[in-house]
Formats: sequence, C-alpha cells, structure tokens
Amino acid sequence: MDEPGFSLRDSNICIVGLGLMGGSMALALRDQVAGITAVDADPATCDAAVQQGIVSQASSDLNLAASAEIVILATPVRTLIQQISELAPILKPGTLIFDLGSVKGPVVEAMNALPAHIHAVAGHPMCGKEVSGVAHADAALYQGARFVLCRTERTTTEAWALASAIVDTIGAHSVEMDSAHHDQVAALISHLPYLMSAALASEAGRAASTDPMLWTLASSGFRDTSRLAGSDPTMMSNILSLNSVNVMAAMAGAQAVLQQLSEALLHEDYEQICGTLSVAQNARRSWEESQRK
Amino acid sequence: MDEPGFSLRDSNICIVGLGLMGGSMALALRDQVAGITAVDADPATCDAAVQQGIVSQASSDLNLAASAEIVILATPVRTLIQQISELAPILKPGTLIFDLGSVKGPVVEAMNALPAHIHAVAGHPMCGKEVSGVAHADAALYQGARFVLCRTERTTTEAWALASAIVDTIGAHSVEMDSAHHDQVAALISHLPYLMSAALASEAGRAASTDPMLWTLASSGFRDTSRLAGSDPTMMSNILSLNSVNVMAAMAGAQAVLQQLSEALLHEDYEQICGTLSVAQNARRSWEESQRK
Repeated sequence: MDEPGFSLRDSNICIVGLGLMGGSMALALRDQVAGITAVDADPATCDAAVQQGIVSQASSDLNLAASAEIVILATPVRTLIQQISELAPILKPGTLIFDLGSVKGPVVEAMNALPAHIHAVAGHPMCGKEVSGVAHADAALYQGARFVLCRTERTTTEAWALASAIVDTIGAHSVEMDSAHHDQVAALISHLPYLMSAALASEAGRAASTDPMLWTLASSGFRDTSRLAGSDPTMMSNILSLNSVNVMAAMAGAQAVLQQLSEALLHEDYEQICGTLSVAQNARRSWEESQRK
Repeated sequence: MDEPGFSLRDSNICIVGLGLMGGSMALALRDQVAGITAVDADPATCDAAVQQGIVSQASSDLNLAASAEIVILATPVRTLIQQISELAPILKPGTLIFDLGSVKGPVVEAMNALPAHIHAVAGHPMCGKEVSGVAHADAALYQGARFVLCRTERTTTEAWALASAIVDTIGAHSVEMDSAHHDQVAALISHLPYLMSAALASEAGRAASTDPMLWTLASSGFRDTSRLAGSDPTMMSNILSLNSVNVMAAMAGAQAVLQQLSEALLHEDYEQICGTLSVAQNARRSWEESQRK
C-alpha cells in the first residue's frame, strides 16, 4: 500500500459538506494545515465560505477534491456513503478519506470497498448542536469532545496517525471503537434521546396548536427535553434509517418503560411507579458520576 | 366571610416543607414580610434553616402554623392535600392557605372543603430544578417564571390579592387558570417531558451497566434530554398519580409517535420518517418562536 507520507501541517484538506460540522472543522483546522478547500452542493454556501475566509476555494464539483491529500466528508451520512465511491477515481494515490458521519457500519463498509491506493478512517465526533448550517460554525465545537475513530480495511498506520492528528488538532479526544459497537452505543445515547425529544415535541405541539396556554407555561424542563427535536429531519432520517436495527431495539426498550409506567398509573400501583422512576434516577446519577471522573 | 384584612408586608408567613421550592420561597420573601417560620418533617432541616437565617423559627409540628396569617404549602402534593385538612382546626380565622403543588385539581378540591373562615388560593410556579432539598434553595428561582393561580370556593377578593402579591414579590408572573385546564397542560409540558427523560435514562442505564462506553460517549444531547430523570421519584410519583388521566393521555400520544417511527423504520419508509420528524421540528420551532415574543 502507498503511505500518505505527509504530515497534517503540510496537507491540503478538502471538506465536503459545509454545514455546522464541516464549517466548524474548517475553522478549527484552517491555521494548522497547508490549505483548505470545500465542496458543497449549494453555490451560495460556497461563495459565502470563501468570502468569509473559512476556506480558500469552494465548488459544487466534487472534482475539487482531486488536489487534496485529505478529504473530510461532512455531508449527511447517506450522501457521504455515495461520495466515498464517487471519490475513488478522482483522488490521488495515498489520499486519506475521513468522515464525520453519525453511523459507522455502512461507512466502514463503503470505505472497505475503496481501491487499495486510497486510505480511509471512519470517524464520529460526539458533539453537535440542534442548529444546522455553516452560519452556526464554531471553531470551538470539537473542543473537549470525544471523537470515535474506526479502523477500516483501508486504514494504514500513517492514515491512522493522520486521522488522530486531526482529532488532536481540533481539541477532541479520540476513542477507538469497532463500527458495530459504535452504532449500538450511538443508538442509545444519541439517536434515542433525539427520538424521545421528537415524540415529546410532536405530542405537545399537537395540543399547542389549539391551546396557546401550552407554550405560555412550558419552561426549562420542556425546553431541555425538546431541544434535540429541533435537529434537521433529513439529517436525522439518514442517521436513523442507516442504524435502524439498533435504533428499533433502543426504542423498544424505552417504549417498554413507558408502557410499564402507563400500566402502573392505570392500576394505581404507586410502589411500581416509584420503583421504575428510581431506576431512571439512579441511571441519570450514574451518568453524572461518570462525568466527574 | 372574614377577609384577611392585612397586607403581605405585615404578614407572618409559615412555609410548610423546606425543600427546594419552600426554601427558595423563604429566601425570596424573608425581607419583604413581617416574619417567616417553617414546618418540616426533618428536625435537621429545621435546625439548619434557622441557623442559616432562612427562617426565624422551625418545627416538625404543624401547630407552628397557628400564629401565621399566610401558610404556604410546599410539601409533596399528596402530603400537602392531607395538610390542608389538618390545618383547618389549627389556623386563625382569615388565614390564607396557598400551595405550590404541581397538580391543581385535587388541591382545589381539598381547599373547597375548608371551613368558610379559612381562605385559600391554589398555585403552581412553572420553575424548578432537577435537584431537591433546601441546600439548593435560591432566592432567584422564581424570577421571571410563570406562576399559575387557581381560584377555589375559599378565594376571597383579598385572598386573591394576597396570593398575587406573593407572586409579584418573588418576581414571577401570575397566570389565572382553572385547575382542570392547568392539569391538562401540565401533563403535556411538564409531566410528559419528565417521563420521556426517565424512560431514556432507564433504557440507556440498563445498557450502561454492562457497557462503560455508553457514559464515555454520552454528550450534550443525552445530558439535556435525561436531565429531568434526576428528579425525586417520590415527588414525581405523587404528581403523576394525582394527574394520571391527563398523564396517561399524554403518554399515549407520545407512544403513538414512537410507534409510528418504529414501524416506518421497519418498513424503510423514509418519507414517513422524514414527515414525522418534520412535524416534531416544527413543533419545537413554534415553541421557540413563542419565547421570542
């Protein structure tokens, strides 16, 4: 296999997808690398990014990636999986493809199918915001976040070192995981919170459409629990449908808890309600304690 | 009917239940009234509150309320409903009973059963924290919050004015509602968020007990969506069981959304997933817009 044979500092990077994650990546890396360009489907986004100095050059044509030594895919995960195969004939031998997709199994599979002269590492930064678009890009977004890295059949020693250097440079902490394990965990701590938030917002919104008092009285509890429901539906549909087996299992677990509580309420089984709610409180506390370490 | 015939500034207040809400109420009111005492079942809490100057006197004996012109009930809602009838023979004619309970129907019912010489207004401040206890008491807790006030058959013009003065003094905004409407709305914007948060924490916690990677990767999305699960299970069981009809209806609505998403995932119905998630995003946005007004 060809080795990249270059350091991050000497690399030209092309970021594909100038949304919140790609834009923040560009801001966090731009002073640390030889050059940054971007590909985005929206010409207006390309123009704005160049004008604001986020990247030196931007185009809606994926061929712009040909001159890069590192390509970072930050498009919605269904799109980026397509782009992996589209990039294969475009890139120079030894180029590293790295991605920020929220589901890793199908990405690793697509990377495994790349020709041997293209190198690839799959990644997932455990951070984000419920808002989208390059307008919300923030150089500090990745600071202190965990960043999952998954090896692929196209991960050379040097490719791994380069991906790790990107993670270090943007201030995140890398965590090595296999893609199946990542997707299982992400279903529970990322996709399920989103779904619970969306179901809440949806049900409250239905009632709010005929009763203005709901939004008048909704306060910090509703605000925090419904925050994730503001996420982009297309992005989230991509993620959920590519991780559907794990997501359905996580949903079934949460639905069973709701069903248990609903039945205990129906039967006025106060002990059962208390017990079920205590399990939830203990879980939240165990997470809180883990954060203090 | 006897009228209270006194202003808030000239009143002696007895707060029953020195937890987060009662303690915060004492801190917010203590420089604005003639005197504040407290009743709490826990002698150590009583001693600490007097030593820290939160109240001038405290006891585990409800008879301490006899000398007050205003009694504010801040105990868990099942307890405070009992205390309403226990207080009836203890209090001076014209005393105002006011409460902070999260469910209003059963409280108003208990207040309606008071003798005519006791006055009563039911209240619910739309604020709180997921932590409990007087140690977290905060004079600013009520600042800017909506504060629901419900009339009862024991609400005189002066009793209403006094309850409104308390709300104004602590920096909250009063909202008049009938108790049935309050309980319907609270089920959707307060009790349902808690239940979704608890179901999430419970399901993630179950997996985390055998896989430490869950808590390593859980980030801001999990943090915010699971925050309410940290609430006291006894307090929440009280609330949920006293509002069970509304709570079960709200849960059924949210469970139907989850079920719809689960089936759409199973049938790979991408359009349906996107559509359902868009409804949720629009609901969250409509709440956000309501907050800007």
